[in-house]
Amino acid sequence: MEAAKIESMIIHHLNRALPHHKMRDVYFYAVLPAGKFFRPSLVWSIAKDLNFSLYNLSINNINSNLALLSSSVELHHAYTLIHDDLPCMDNDLVRRGKACTHIAYGEWQALLAGDGLLNVSYQLIAKMNHPRVQELLKLYSWSTGPKGLIHGQSLDLSHEMTESFTNTIRTHELKTARLIQVSILGSALLAMSQSDRSIEKKLFTYARLLGINFQLIDDLSELASTNLSQHEIDVNPWLKFSDESLNTCIDNLKKFEVLSVDLNLKSTNSIVNKYYEKMLGEIETNIQTIHEHLKNKIDLAPVIFLMKNFCNIKNFN
Amino acid sequence: MEAAKIESMIIHHLNRALPHHKMRDVYFYAVLPAGKFFRPSLVWSIAKDLNFSLYNLSINNINSNLALLSSSVELHHAYTLIHDDLPCMDNDLVRRGKACTHIAYGEWQALLAGDGLLNVSYQLIAKMNHPRVQELLKLYSWSTGPKGLIHGQSLDLSHEMTESFTNTIRTHELKTARLIQVSILGSALLAMSQSDRSIEKKLFTYARLLGINFQLIDDLSELASTNLSQHEIDVNPWLKFSDESLNTCIDNLKKFEVLSVDLNLKSTNSIVNKYYEKMLGEIETNIQTIHEHLKNKIDLAPVIFLMKNFCNIKNFN
Repeated sequence: MEAAKIESMIIHHLNRALPHHKMRDVYFYAVLPAGKFFRPSLVWSIAKDLNFSLYNLSINNINSNLALLSSSVELHHAYTLIHDDLPCMDNDLVRRGKACTHIAYGEWQALLAGDGLLNVSYQLIAKMNHPRVQELLKLYSWSTGPKGLIHGQSLDLSHEMTESFTNTIRTHELKTARLIQVSILGSALLAMSQSDRSIEKKLFTYARLLGINFQLIDDLSELASTNLSQHEIDVNPWLKFSDESLNTCIDNLKKFEVLSVDLNLKSTNSIVNKYYEKMLGEIETNIQTIHEHLKNKIDLAPVIFLMKNFCNIKNFN
Repeated sequence: MEAAKIESMIIHHLNRALPHHKMRDVYFYAVLPAGKFFRPSLVWSIAKDLNFSLYNLSINNINSNLALLSSSVELHHAYTLIHDDLPCMDNDLVRRGKACTHIAYGEWQALLAGDGLLNVSYQLIAKMNHPRVQELLKLYSWSTGPKGLIHGQSLDLSHEMTESFTNTIRTHELKTARLIQVSILGSALLAMSQSDRSIEKKLFTYARLLGINFQLIDDLSELASTNLSQHEIDVNPWLKFSDESLNTCIDNLKKFEVLSVDLNLKSTNSIVNKYYEKMLGEIETNIQTIHEHLKNKIDLAPVIFLMKNFCNIKNFN
């Protein structure tokens, strides 16, 4: 599914959910232009992999269940970013190359737009027409609620995240993997009219590993800059827990590859491919710098090998 | 339904939704001790009025749909209060006689507890077992989303609320009436297995009038203090739009009485009675002070008469 189409669906649903009021600008500013639409892309790719005819039916229907879920996860993601950037949270100034929402429009505007988007993410679930909607709602609200994504944010803000490597991985799982699990397993619930616990369990693990690796590899690529911010030095697990980061990353990459081959999610795996290729580019170009930051304590060759190996698996293309 | 029972249900569901982590304290601090449980009480009273046997079945079942909705609306209400009190919003220090959550625990803790409770309010809907859950979810997310409660907060914060009397009423409708509509109409959806558009429409209007009057009468009672804060002087509609406030309040009280008699919601009307009686006490005791603030421009006798008249309708008791 191309980004332009995902975007037009989001615009359609956001437009319908907003009042005719100047606050519209705040919402749209916070949501678009988006990042790489990673989460909505997963919604579409999973449907394509599991139920091609449903995917085909849904792709041109702006009100299809998949269009609703795809838009919902992106709007939910956008709310977490707005709130994360607020002065009382990470106190960031720039997001996606422009001023953060609270800088551009003010703090209460950003806070309310975040609350609004959170509600809209559920509004879109309410609009679905599918026998498993309530199951999806259960998964969604558990994943993003106080035991899920929000608990991850708490571990991060309280600095418990950096107290141990276990806490780091737990934070990545909650803060990053949970919404990816909603995208992947949520799409599977819509694609499979009947429950299949065995596949669902595998998809849940697949999405968990994907989310944690997404974050670990992102952390690694952050070390490509010559000058690291103090914040980066404080929180990057590769600096503080080098061996554990390496071993866990390797272990997760292996487990993910096995599950990927088992599940044979061609279209989803090709999204992962593209992400790996992009990250490999950044990591390989700056491998010298990265090794220097890591004081040459660990050897990243196995990580690079496993990512490349994944990209070369023929079935996925 | 007595407050202790409503509270024990909230504690049960909140406990289950929270991780084992120090953030629990923040959530519980923000939620309890609560106010008068106005919204959850309406959930129970409507069910009692419309479907007594369902009410009876649900009252001792902590996981019943009514227990879930009752807890959900109170937790949702609590989230709006936490966020409203934040420095970037109303910047309040005290709520329900104790320090606001962000004062007691910190700003990010308050922000995240608010986000968490918002999610929990939907989590409890996901746990329901009822053919009309999705309809309820639609009502809920529309009422509390960017076109609903959150739009009311925007009108308040942007000071558009005080620009005209129409805007004031609109703000009261969105910020106050919407969640009351969720409580009343939501409970009706659960109490009536089949849709009855005519009653649902009436209940929607009933709840709208109740919410707006709740706020207008509350605004009036605020004038019982000898010294008004500058903020109160700036926002109280009775000071700025005295005639319109009086006429609308009278008009709404009349319409509400007609609908109340028509719908004959004995148990719900007796909750309204109690509220009116409490407010009448405050208003009548300080009527001199109130009239002085209003510079004797308007005569409040009809408002008092209508509230007393409502309390005397025999059917409701």
